[in-house]
Amino acid sequence: MTAEFRVEPWAVGISGVDTAHLAQEESVLGLSNGHIGWRGNLDEGDPRGVAGSYLNGVFEDHPMPHAEDGYGYPETGQTVINVPNGQLIRLLVDDEPFDVEHGRVHRHDRRLDLRDGTLHREVEWESTEGRQVRITSTRLVSLAHRSLAAIRYRVAATDTPVAITVLSEVLANEPLPSPHDDPRVQELLARPLEPVAAYVRGSRATLLHRTRRSGLQVAVSADHEVSSTAAVAPEVTVEADGDLARARIRVDLAPGEELEVVKFVGHEWSGSLEAQTLRDRAEEAVEEAVRRGWDDVATAQREALDAYWECGDVRVEGDERLQQAVRFALFQVFQAAARAEVRSVPGKGLTGSGYEGHTFWDFEAFVLPVLTSTAPDAALQALRWRHATLDRARERARTLHLDGAAFPWRTIDGRESSGYWPASTAAFHINAAVAGAVMQYVRATGDTGFEREAGAEILIETARLWLSLGRWDADGGFHIDGVTGPDEYSAIVDDNVYTNLAARRNLRGAVEAARRHPDIAAGLGVDDAETERWEASAQAMAVPFDEEKQVHAQSAGFTAHAPWDFDATGPEQYPLHSYFPYFDLYRKQVLKQADLVLALYTSHEEFTREEKARAFAYYDALTVRDSSLSAMAQVVIAAEVGHLDLAAAYLAELAALDLDDLHGNTAEGLHIAALAGIWTGITAGFGGMRDSDHGLSFHPRLPQGITRLGFGVRQHGRILHLDITPQETTYRLSAGEPLSLRHAGEELVLSAGDPVTVQNPAPDPALTPEPRQPRWREPGRPRAGD
Amino acid sequence: MTAEFRVEPWAVGISGVDTAHLAQEESVLGLSNGHIGWRGNLDEGDPRGVAGSYLNGVFEDHPMPHAEDGYGYPETGQTVINVPNGQLIRLLVDDEPFDVEHGRVHRHDRRLDLRDGTLHREVEWESTEGRQVRITSTRLVSLAHRSLAAIRYRVAATDTPVAITVLSEVLANEPLPSPHDDPRVQELLARPLEPVAAYVRGSRATLLHRTRRSGLQVAVSADHEVSSTAAVAPEVTVEADGDLARARIRVDLAPGEELEVVKFVGHEWSGSLEAQTLRDRAEEAVEEAVRRGWDDVATAQREALDAYWECGDVRVEGDERLQQAVRFALFQVFQAAARAEVRSVPGKGLTGSGYEGHTFWDFEAFVLPVLTSTAPDAALQALRWRHATLDRARERARTLHLDGAAFPWRTIDGRESSGYWPASTAAFHINAAVAGAVMQYVRATGDTGFEREAGAEILIETARLWLSLGRWDADGGFHIDGVTGPDEYSAIVDDNVYTNLAARRNLRGAVEAARRHPDIAAGLGVDDAETERWEASAQAMAVPFDEEKQVHAQSAGFTAHAPWDFDATGPEQYPLHSYFPYFDLYRKQVLKQADLVLALYTSHEEFTREEKARAFAYYDALTVRDSSLSAMAQVVIAAEVGHLDLAAAYLAELAALDLDDLHGNTAEGLHIAALAGIWTGITAGFGGMRDSDHGLSFHPRLPQGITRLGFGVRQHGRILHLDITPQETTYRLSAGEPLSLRHAGEELVLSAGDPVTVQNPAPDPALTPEPRQPRWREPGRPRAGD
Repeated sequence: MTAEFRVEPWAVGISGVDTAHLAQEESVLGLSNGHIGWRGNLDEGDPRGVAGSYLNGVFEDHPMPHAEDGYGYPETGQTVINVPNGQLIRLLVDDEPFDVEHGRVHRHDRRLDLRDGTLHREVEWESTEGRQVRITSTRLVSLAHRSLAAIRYRVAATDTPVAITVLSEVLANEPLPSPHDDPRVQELLARPLEPVAAYVRGSRATLLHRTRRSGLQVAVSADHEVSSTAAVAPEVTVEADGDLARARIRVDLAPGEELEVVKFVGHEWSGSLEAQTLRDRAEEAVEEAVRRGWDDVATAQREALDAYWECGDVRVEGDERLQQAVRFALFQVFQAAARAEVRSVPGKGLTGSGYEGHTFWDFEAFVLPVLTSTAPDAALQALRWRHATLDRARERARTLHLDGAAFPWRTIDGRESSGYWPASTAAFHINAAVAGAVMQYVRATGDTGFEREAGAEILIETARLWLSLGRWDADGGFHIDGVTGPDEYSAIVDDNVYTNLAARRNLRGAVEAARRHPDIAAGLGVDDAETERWEASAQAMAVPFDEEKQVHAQSAGFTAHAPWDFDATGPEQYPLHSYFPYFDLYRKQVLKQADLVLALYTSHEEFTREEKARAFAYYDALTVRDSSLSAMAQVVIAAEVGHLDLAAAYLAELAALDLDDLHGNTAEGLHIAALAGIWTGITAGFGGMRDSDHGLSFHPRLPQGITRLGFGVRQHGRILHLDITPQETTYRLSAGEPLSLRHAGEELVLSAGDPVTVQNPAPDPALTPEPRQPRWREPGRPRAGD
Repeated sequence: MTAEFRVEPWAVGISGVDTAHLAQEESVLGLSNGHIGWRGNLDEGDPRGVAGSYLNGVFEDHPMPHAEDGYGYPETGQTVINVPNGQLIRLLVDDEPFDVEHGRVHRHDRRLDLRDGTLHREVEWESTEGRQVRITSTRLVSLAHRSLAAIRYRVAATDTPVAITVLSEVLANEPLPSPHDDPRVQELLARPLEPVAAYVRGSRATLLHRTRRSGLQVAVSADHEVSSTAAVAPEVTVEADGDLARARIRVDLAPGEELEVVKFVGHEWSGSLEAQTLRDRAEEAVEEAVRRGWDDVATAQREALDAYWECGDVRVEGDERLQQAVRFALFQVFQAAARAEVRSVPGKGLTGSGYEGHTFWDFEAFVLPVLTSTAPDAALQALRWRHATLDRARERARTLHLDGAAFPWRTIDGRESSGYWPASTAAFHINAAVAGAVMQYVRATGDTGFEREAGAEILIETARLWLSLGRWDADGGFHIDGVTGPDEYSAIVDDNVYTNLAARRNLRGAVEAARRHPDIAAGLGVDDAETERWEASAQAMAVPFDEEKQVHAQSAGFTAHAPWDFDATGPEQYPLHSYFPYFDLYRKQVLKQADLVLALYTSHEEFTREEKARAFAYYDALTVRDSSLSAMAQVVIAAEVGHLDLAAAYLAELAALDLDDLHGNTAEGLHIAALAGIWTGITAGFGGMRDSDHGLSFHPRLPQGITRLGFGVRQHGRILHLDITPQETTYRLSAGEPLSLRHAGEELVLSAGDPVTVQNPAPDPALTPEPRQPRWREPGRPRAGD
């Protein structure tokens, strides 16, 4: 059961309103700029799936219950909370509240416009008393003005004269779905904000609140521009107190007359600034918006997106759903991070409170590559956030008796907030993901300033972590024991290949960064002996290979374990972790998500094509994709090893994940990393794009049905555009110095404004038969997962 | 800082009263019969370390908090609670409450008499007003009358006339130290009992209570026999209401006159019986005691212990501390289980609320062998309890998608109550411990009736578990992956040797039981194909061996891991699990407790002497003994491989564990399994006793200083007595059919009443040098642990 969105190339629209799908729709139609997140709640607040108004970084602390305590377990959890909600515009028609569940809805349409960056709504409603109105609202969360969200709300009388009352509100402490069974935590989070002050001036009202435990202050200010074609001008009264600020706008409309309310909402928060400072800033954001007016704000929004789409847009001909899905995905990825500015980007972006608003490794591993290629400024801000948390990561490493820095598995503010260490603390690969994102960002942008200020330090401290995590064997091999790789159906294993190869890259990146910035390295106490150890351990890194089966082992001994009994597992027993104990999942050959197959992509230079084909054949047959993070790598490697149809099927699954609510949990927020994976699936799968120290390379191959594919990649300030047809690829460079790349292994030097068209390589014959997926988990089936 | 108990052969006494040690003393001086447990609290209740009055099986439920939930995690925990406390006898001397912290204590002595089974106390006290009294109290928890505890309390005026008031109470809802940080759980457990009714008749008062969540009813009844040499007879008034029953006894004593109060307390509980039934039973226990009187009750106590000591006594000449310790240990082991009667025996017995009153694997693995050899009736009752929980174990196995039965890692009533699965659910070896205890019991007693009624079913259902837990490899080997062995500093490993060999024994035991009782087996659906699978998997069981190091691997790959850095670990960093994260402990070569070395004992026939010597040398150097369950196997194997001094040192540590509060946590209750290990250390270490299908064998070897050692072992209703000197051993059989045994490998047939004296074997030369223990963890050091 899923909402049925219209397929349009530049929009996601839906007609009618069905409360069963509201929560999913609110996530899909959510607006954000990385600072503010507004779920696509109906203007009038009710009915709702889940009310959601977030400010990136605003969370509440709560004690972490552990059934049995252990050394190093985090004692405090963090949960995103609702900030005062400025979305609300309630409407009364002749004193009858407008409510889509009452009266008659003659027309209801919502449409997320991916170029305008707005959510537009049109409603024709008849009250139970037979009064008819037309409501048109357009809202945006400004990409140009970080603190600002805005709504233009219009009501027109259509048939008969009506008395219109609009109540435009800012409301604090709206309930959030509880992430915890623990009633104690539920109680703590039930009303997390305490009112500090409320102010009214003219049509502007401002609420100041403070979180009870985490000590953050939040200011939300709203002002209104009211106009009408009615004979008598609307009356406006404003009040604010405690948890509620409310503007009451009253007008009588004759048929054909209209009321327009433009509401600007400013949002600020801080853990350190004075309340007055926050108030000033929130009110100033609103003042400035009032000064500029709606049209100007809406134009700036369009311009910000135009600038993004210049490189970010992916054009897919021959598959309308994929075309829509990839633009929707990029829009959501971009708006999740655009103005985050030294804050984390949660797993759900700011579209829902799933995972308690925490950031995980997938931001660096899945989302940042897309941002680095299409919106490097946003990538930079996110990397600066990680760097800002480095002291906390160092402290965490000390707690764990490790060197360097250990970044948290789940967090909002940089402190570890995870409750199950085998799938969090042990998953040290997050540190390589952060380091890898730094390296990719520096390669793609040439931003050596960032490398000096922050990047090198991250690389050095994570390299130190790896060295202290590993051990040397008697034969000179370097091993990393007792860790958890990406696949969460294995844990606490030795020599996870993905982790080891990522650590190798991390260690080598640190060596290079230390060489490029010897003063920075020296300042951190790095000497030649240390870089030599990094180099040596990277060189000696163990990569387990099963000689008998002639396939890499996901981790030492993995291929010897019992295979999962897929024949005995029914479709109702997925996702497996909801129906089987960890102990059984861990000891058997079954993958929640691509792990070694992910390494085949992220460490592509470490494997021959034959090794990739064999590994894909082996592991794809064991991968149930109970995680939304799986399919991306499966798309990319299926395409590389010659199973283009299968790649397309996995991509279609990713494309449907949130739009068709494939995992049944889009209500909790979008799967931002999986959405980012659509871009990677297309560019790295069909475009064959790979990134390495030797630059970019491509190997275009279009699946059946896709007649043309275009996308852009930012490189050192210029844009490389690809235009791929089944036969040939045209490379075009927007500006600047010539760019050297490889096309199907051949070097190609591209000059700005001088496109080059080359033949695509012949289709690669598959070296292995197309793998048979676990029963019930073939791509394209309805599926639950996380 | 520990209490300093006097060293006496048949008692544990202590002079003076120091509140800093009260809680430890209360555990050491605790009385129990396996049904009732009374900590050695002072009669007057205060000062106290921890108030403790328990009934075996009376617990309260509480929700289990999990920071992150997982399939199969128990949702409900169980915690032992205090039942209404009948110990209390408060004394007022001329209206001034007797309190050892006020006035002047001229003499204070307590003495646990291991033959009388009483705790005796003598006090000479002078009130702040200068009134002097002599108080003598003797208490017992009756081994003969299961529901009964009794106190004889005497007060004499010594110097001046005094007005004496004795308040003899039964008090409900005394606070317990909270096992949980979670304030919600704390609150639930703060007053777990709600009053149901209170009754008074004559000098008898009865309280009926009910637990709020677990729905158990408890009846405690007290009656008093009051006598005095005073001129005017004492006045007695009794009242009872809610949480308090109180007898008030008032008398004026002239110097030399005495008041005697004998208090009988009856205890009953049930989850199913009617309240009236419980009341009747508790009151009847008291009535019967009143009818018999104190002397008769005390005599029956002595007789019960005489019967126990006939076989149970261990005589150690040459080491007074060890002599005391082993008798104390046997006394505590016996009274923990004597009248448990189809209830579990908690890890702390009924001497404290440590581990929430839960039973673990160590009961079957460590305690039951001692009971089977010295008090088989108590062993039988405990095995019947396990059998009574079989349906819950079957249900747990179903939850885990396993066949057969999976017994809980921690429980009071048979339901899994553990909160950290890698060290509980994954520790399947508990099932082999239960099965092994069944097999040993049947071997030692010839009780085929029990085997038919219960034992065979346990063996069959646990064999089924192992078969479903294991996997076959391509070469026909059978492996058990992803489990946790005894050593809790390793977890989720493949082919733990201890577990695999214990499973082999379990599987073979099931085959034999099925053959002996084909009708029982058929009734459980066992066919030939199934027993063949058990046989085949037992035969094919993997036993990892490191060819390079020529030593068994504790589990697959263990010996390849990094060794723990003992040189970098300070004395203040023990126990390691309080200072290092599990992830680091798990991936390194460091043992919390003997694991493979335990297998060298429990599966002694599976190893050559050379393999044992090499394994002991390897693993002893890695074992930090942060668990009190470690030293027993270290004693036994050190002795076997020729390190008798080291064996004696480990045994001395065990002997000191609770008497010297070596782990600093005796306050929470005695370490019953470790106490049992003293007996095993002596009999299996110095006596060289081994039990197998081929009968008992011995290999006596006394360490320096011990000049004579005597102990008994029950075999099929008769007692085998050993009397060992450094040179020779005398074997004596009490009665019945002749017994065949082996002495130093030579068969010896013993007839009742016809002792045989043989030369001890020559001392075995050690094949390996004495291992060097981890720094700071050599035996004999003060140490923390659990």
